[in-house]
Amino acid sequence: MKESDDMTYYLAAFVDELVQSGMTDVVISPGSRSTPIALLMAEHPKLEVTVLIDERSASFYALGLAKTTGKPVAILCTSGTAAANYYPAIVEAFQARIPLLVLTADRPHELRDIGAPQAIDQIKMYGSYVKWFVEMSLPVDERSMIQYSRTMAARAIGTSVSAPGGPVHLNFPLREPLLPNLQFEDLWTKYGEANGSIVNVQVGGYTITEDRAKFFGQLFSAKKKGIIVCGEMPGRSDFSELVTELAEALQYPIFADPLSGLRAGSHAKEMICEGYDAFLREEAVKEALEPEVIIRFGSMPVSKFLMQYIARASSADHIVIDGDGGWRDPTLQASFMVHCKEDVFCKKILPLLALRKESSWLQKVISVNQRTKNLLSSPVKSESLFEGNVITELQALLPEGSAIFVGNSMPIRDADTFFLTDDKDIKVLANRGANGIDGVVSTALAASKAFKRLVLVIGDLSFYHDMNGLLAAKLLKLDVTIVLINNNGGGIFSFLPQSKIENHFEALFGTPMHMNFEHAAKLYDADYSLIESWEEFRSKLLGSLSHKGLHIIEVPTNREGNEQEHRKLWKSVSQEIKLSLSREI
Amino acid sequence: MKESDDMTYYLAAFVDELVQSGMTDVVISPGSRSTPIALLMAEHPKLEVTVLIDERSASFYALGLAKTTGKPVAILCTSGTAAANYYPAIVEAFQARIPLLVLTADRPHELRDIGAPQAIDQIKMYGSYVKWFVEMSLPVDERSMIQYSRTMAARAIGTSVSAPGGPVHLNFPLREPLLPNLQFEDLWTKYGEANGSIVNVQVGGYTITEDRAKFFGQLFSAKKKGIIVCGEMPGRSDFSELVTELAEALQYPIFADPLSGLRAGSHAKEMICEGYDAFLREEAVKEALEPEVIIRFGSMPVSKFLMQYIARASSADHIVIDGDGGWRDPTLQASFMVHCKEDVFCKKILPLLALRKESSWLQKVISVNQRTKNLLSSPVKSESLFEGNVITELQALLPEGSAIFVGNSMPIRDADTFFLTDDKDIKVLANRGANGIDGVVSTALAASKAFKRLVLVIGDLSFYHDMNGLLAAKLLKLDVTIVLINNNGGGIFSFLPQSKIENHFEALFGTPMHMNFEHAAKLYDADYSLIESWEEFRSKLLGSLSHKGLHIIEVPTNREGNEQEHRKLWKSVSQEIKLSLSREI
Repeated sequence: MKESDDMTYYLAAFVDELVQSGMTDVVISPGSRSTPIALLMAEHPKLEVTVLIDERSASFYALGLAKTTGKPVAILCTSGTAAANYYPAIVEAFQARIPLLVLTADRPHELRDIGAPQAIDQIKMYGSYVKWFVEMSLPVDERSMIQYSRTMAARAIGTSVSAPGGPVHLNFPLREPLLPNLQFEDLWTKYGEANGSIVNVQVGGYTITEDRAKFFGQLFSAKKKGIIVCGEMPGRSDFSELVTELAEALQYPIFADPLSGLRAGSHAKEMICEGYDAFLREEAVKEALEPEVIIRFGSMPVSKFLMQYIARASSADHIVIDGDGGWRDPTLQASFMVHCKEDVFCKKILPLLALRKESSWLQKVISVNQRTKNLLSSPVKSESLFEGNVITELQALLPEGSAIFVGNSMPIRDADTFFLTDDKDIKVLANRGANGIDGVVSTALAASKAFKRLVLVIGDLSFYHDMNGLLAAKLLKLDVTIVLINNNGGGIFSFLPQSKIENHFEALFGTPMHMNFEHAAKLYDADYSLIESWEEFRSKLLGSLSHKGLHIIEVPTNREGNEQEHRKLWKSVSQEIKLSLSREI
Repeated sequence: MKESDDMTYYLAAFVDELVQSGMTDVVISPGSRSTPIALLMAEHPKLEVTVLIDERSASFYALGLAKTTGKPVAILCTSGTAAANYYPAIVEAFQARIPLLVLTADRPHELRDIGAPQAIDQIKMYGSYVKWFVEMSLPVDERSMIQYSRTMAARAIGTSVSAPGGPVHLNFPLREPLLPNLQFEDLWTKYGEANGSIVNVQVGGYTITEDRAKFFGQLFSAKKKGIIVCGEMPGRSDFSELVTELAEALQYPIFADPLSGLRAGSHAKEMICEGYDAFLREEAVKEALEPEVIIRFGSMPVSKFLMQYIARASSADHIVIDGDGGWRDPTLQASFMVHCKEDVFCKKILPLLALRKESSWLQKVISVNQRTKNLLSSPVKSESLFEGNVITELQALLPEGSAIFVGNSMPIRDADTFFLTDDKDIKVLANRGANGIDGVVSTALAASKAFKRLVLVIGDLSFYHDMNGLLAAKLLKLDVTIVLINNNGGGIFSFLPQSKIENHFEALFGTPMHMNFEHAAKLYDADYSLIESWEEFRSKLLGSLSHKGLHIIEVPTNREGNEQEHRKLWKSVSQEIKLSLSREI
């Protein structure tokens, strides 16, 4: 057994600096070239190592950890196509602003681009989807190079978490022999207490001047018809309270996306408006509720009709606050793009506002919202199982402190429609960076570690796409319930115009797989049930919550029927709201 | 139902030009943005459309089609992370020089990088792994733009097949409405007979001058101790005959990789040397067989010991012929890098050679090889099932015209050791561009369409990695046998030095999954058997060949025992060869 002493301290310093900078979790996929880093990570006393074989699932698992802990997570793989399998999760992390350290082992320079096995060009292989790329030097056992290695680790962490958070990529050329010497007694300490000096990275954030704050305070104080729109926005701990205060001061309703976290918990729920996707479908309603001011925080919400409503209000003052310095305005109608941390913005504006006591505008919006909720809040009675009821049922059944992870593309839309404001604190999560159906199982499984209990609601195509992700539940013994909505194909396409092209629809879009997922459940030691009624659903779901392990509850639904029930419901909302608005006039 | 007439002719011309340029197959993954192209492809009378949901598997399936037909295959997906899932197969196609047309639908310019849903930056997203990238214009219904669309299609095909073959990427920004008008009677003909004029691309190839040919003819004629090394080399139809002629004329043995195609069929098998990976393990043997000339065609062979043997012969004239103008010399010892089509090179050199009748050098090499084969050719008797026997058994059982697709990393090495020269024409295939364990199932399933019968030999990790690929077998009703070698983890790692690090080995490298793959078989309607003896293996394998559908034959093996049996065998070869060489002296 030949070991390489040269590489040992260099790589140990790197791994240790990750830990010193706050990293607690790494997800490793097995390989040969990455052996030295993998062994040192496993050897580090303060690092939790998860090993997952499929790099695609592994990277989405890491994304789920980072998403829920707010801390950067590292993924490590060997050279070759292994690294290419990370790409979907890297794209999602970039779009969703999740800190991820992508560590790829590589062949050294003399083995590159000459037909050597498993050598591919890994330099900048993720293009513009990483915030920073470093081609690391070959390991050298010298004080200055130990310090280089430590600095790169600290900087990688700092870069991944600074606004906007995102993935960084460090590529490690390594020569054989690929064994570090784990027997060194001074493995972590040779060059001083921490094997070289630690870099303490302090990451700052965007703010605005007092002058600009005053300007916005006056603008908001002058206009009564305003709305606040909140989308997903990771890692702003006291924002919920601050934005509610802002809404109350201005008497502006908050149009809260299910991923904003504002629909559930102990916030002043009377300010929350969540039925908009249903009631904003008609031009007449959009017109009757036209705002003068739009204040937007976080991602653009899921609802297409909300976006159209915002885009339509072209004469409104439209302020987009992006704490990460990005540009989230798909309406192309922003009048102000403000790069300031969202909580900081609220804190700066609040003392400057002329408080309103009452507002007929707020009452009007809230009344429309309440009428809508009355129609949406009771489960739909349908001959087949109606998909939307899943969310209604879960919100009733799950205990405080739980989470619902929703897949794209139908479950997130159903969560938007049916997850209504409630005191009970249940978090809704999804992968909405790029809205992919890939990697959802893995992300949800990792996210489950942060909650009392997590239920994943996912369609059959998305479930199939990341079935490999289930291995994590089996090997890591995770306690998760998956509600698998099986409509035997792509349900979202029934809502799109191509559903009328009969001769090609099923082959190209419906794409039924005719799978019996009970076998998938058995493959991963999951408890499985196929339900036939909502009574059965309730019983199986509650049963799953009190038992350990992975539970898959399959809800067989019908694509066509599902589309019709949704349309029926939206139609009834539109009629009710139009009627109520016409009575007002 | 609103249709976009504007886009219809532009996209129809693109699709039609692909067909006119020789494309027959496209693999589509469902999505919304890609709807117009998908519908036009489905509507084209001469295009075979395969729909697969997981883009990673879909792209490896397309790779398998392109690999066996030699024709470019298109893959089409929607915008977002869908496209990122193509990356592993694109890397493999680039490294293995397989023509692939990557077609991605994209949001139009006004929806990019502003937080719009499912919009990611698709410009050059595959970096240096595509030979050509085109950001297509938005569709316009004008003669000149129809001609632009047609030209891009023809050029994409031409670029993908010209040396070296590889992937090209065309990105299509598309605006709503996303429905083409399939009702047009002149869909394919509005702008003339073929809807615009067709571009006929003629792709040339590398050659060398007569002077250089003479030079090499003299060089080879002057030296007796030469070897010819043949690796994988797609699409050179009469090369096998030509290189055999060259070998006979020079009396140089051919060191033939299992993927070269030279070990099986009706070529003059007395020139073939295939036991080298076993007999070149000892320095004394390498020394005794040191060549003066090395002529290399195709990829570097699988065998690490052959590579060391070539690298060791530093004073030899080492000629690398790369018909694709690449640089395949991981030894860094080439004395001549020749960019000339391999068959052209043979044809040019052959008439210039002074023919040899006999050669003691050839006899010596062939005699060493024969002694090695005697030891390798009979199945190993082992207490547990020995993995190497799978190849020996398959070669005996399969009929002429079959193919064995071997996974990385153990099966390809076993094929290298145990697939011996035989008259029966059985083709050995693998994904050796980047040697990934990913995508192997999908590539093999697609490749099966080109053979009488295909058997995939694959380890459990690689099988698990692309289990989603099995959906193709189910939906497309493919007739394939999979021999699943289940050693419950990563068998190759037992051969590497980390196998001695006991406290971390199983968790980081062995990675047992403890899966019962019978459930996976049931999920995809496959016939399944778990065998306990070689008699049972033979019976199940022969049974599978005479029945339609997907068959999975699981061979439970033991990682540790497997390593020991391999080492025992190699040791016996080394002893026998050293003894025979010492007797000669």
